[in-house]
Amino acid sequence: MVSEFHYRRRVEFADTDLAGIMHFARFFVFMETAEHEFLRSFGTSVSTTFEDNKIGWPRLTASAEYIRPLKFEDVVDIYLFVDRKGQKSLSYKFVFEHDGELVARGEMASACCICNPGEAIRAITIPPELAEQIEEYRAE
Amino acid sequence: MVSEFHYRRRVEFADTDLAGIMHFARFFVFMETAEHEFLRSFGTSVSTTFEDNKIGWPRLTASAEYIRPLKFEDVVDIYLFVDRKGQKSLSYKFVFEHDGELVARGEMASACCICNPGEAIRAITIPPELAEQIEEYRAE
Amino acid sequence: MVSEFHYRRRVEFADTDLAGIMHFARFFVFMETAEHEFLRSFGTSVSTTFEDNKIGWPRLTASAEYIRPLKFEDVVDIYLFVDRKGQKSLSYKFVFEHDGELVARGEMASACCICNPGEAIRAITIPPELAEQIEEYRAE
Amino acid sequence: MVSEFHYRRRVEFADTDLAGIMHFARFFVFMETAEHEFLRSFGTSVSTTFEDNKIGWPRLTASAEYIRPLKFEDVVDIYLFVDRKGQKSLSYKFVFEHDGELVARGEMASACCICNPGEAIRAITIPPELAEQIEEYRAE
Repeated sequence: MVSEFHYRRRVEFADTDLAGIMHFARFFVFMETAEHEFLRSFGTSVSTTFEDNKIGWPRLTASAEYIRPLKFEDVVDIYLFVDRKGQKSLSYKFVFEHDGELVARGEMASACCICNPGEAIRAITIPPELAEQIEEYRAE
Repeated sequence: MVSEFHYRRRVEFADTDLAGIMHFARFFVFMETAEHEFLRSFGTSVSTTFEDNKIGWPRLTASAEYIRPLKFEDVVDIYLFVDRKGQKSLSYKFVFEHDGELVARGEMASACCICNPGEAIRAITIPPELAEQIEEYRAE
Repeated sequence: MVSEFHYRRRVEFADTDLAGIMHFARFFVFMETAEHEFLRSFGTSVSTTFEDNKIGWPRLTASAEYIRPLKFEDVVDIYLFVDRKGQKSLSYKFVFEHDGELVARGEMASACCICNPGEAIRAITIPPELAEQIEEYRAE
Repeated sequence: MVSEFHYRRRVEFADTDLAGIMHFARFFVFMETAEHEFLRSFGTSVSTTFEDNKIGWPRLTASAEYIRPLKFEDVVDIYLFVDRKGQKSLSYKFVFEHDGELVARGEMASACCICNPGEAIRAITIPPELAEQIEEYRAE
């Protein structure tokens, strides 16, 4: 069972804005990429099929708190924690660090949905193969 | 004194992702653009100078709650409300609608800062010319 | 028959990078949006169906030549010209101006394709309803 | 002397669009990141100082030719080649491959410029420390 993940990436030029720092909306893309690397780390993906249906994870909520700015070429450590495993949804918490200093915190919640082309999106119980691999993070 | 603003834009192709809907991080760019149009609507900008200093508004927090997906070419009505006018910060609330239906809600808080190139960013009292024009939104 | 189009938009904060100017890749998004506004201007869309197939326009080529930088809040006039109407493809030229001064030039070519989910993308003859409305631009 | 570079990255969710493939403008961001990784590989950066001036590399031209679509989670090999080393500019060619198959080709040219805040951008001769490390690629 997995409940946390570490992902590292570098701030790219296109992530910055005229203030010379990483644009605040890009933190959400970094969270999402950490989430997807987390899912790949145990052999699954955010974009899968289950019983011939296309499974996706539309966002329910997303938030960020910004502590320090990130600059171009900064290497960022993103720590993902499974905050809540619901029957039909998953919530993550994120901590961003640069050189060991706290940069930002984030949260994201997503619903497990059938997303077949041409059909209305509908929430479903998380497929057992996935649910069995993830557990909520418990700090010691 | 202004406390609310309406801004309308269309979902562009580059706003969408493979799920066929607007990517969740783009809602934050839409909020930001609404904020900047709001500031322009009474003659100022998010990027100004005050007493020879470059003023910027780094984000403190940002959040979104997603109710319904937005699709390519959807016209979105974004309603901005000044939620809190602090001495050194501003908080906004946002409501996203499409065809009169609620699509998403958002919040953003920013600190008024001196952002001179090569100097550390530092928070300041909102310049009076700006503070005098904005008031907190009070629902009737 | 239409062969040219004018589209105006403003450089947003998220379009800029740490150099303080519009990021060079964003010019391609601006060209694309001009193309889509052009198609909407005579009642169609880049994303349509034809004889029960989903029609899309994957890019064949795209290029830009940068003359002057664009800054945050600059209003940009984008002039689109139909450069070539092939049997299965369309090529556009773009001119970017700010305050009447040339900022950039661009080109984009796209193939008309059936893009049904789960099928390989394949090029088709441009549907006659569309082809009949567009003609190549001829400078007087 | 270096003249070529290999850089690998994965297509992220936010790189895709509703057509289910990587958005054509994102190829330019991938080229740019390859360029910046190339510069870092021999100890410099696209964003440096030289004799107390801030050096930047505004784009002169950029182009791409699209052969096959890239999908979410595809691993992309990007091969960079120094195509021309001018006195004040550098041109690169790029080849994109996925699983050994050609996906796209690209080109980018940039001018070496002094980009001090508040001053007009002006082209300069490439600083010798940089020019001495790069040479044009010559296929055997």
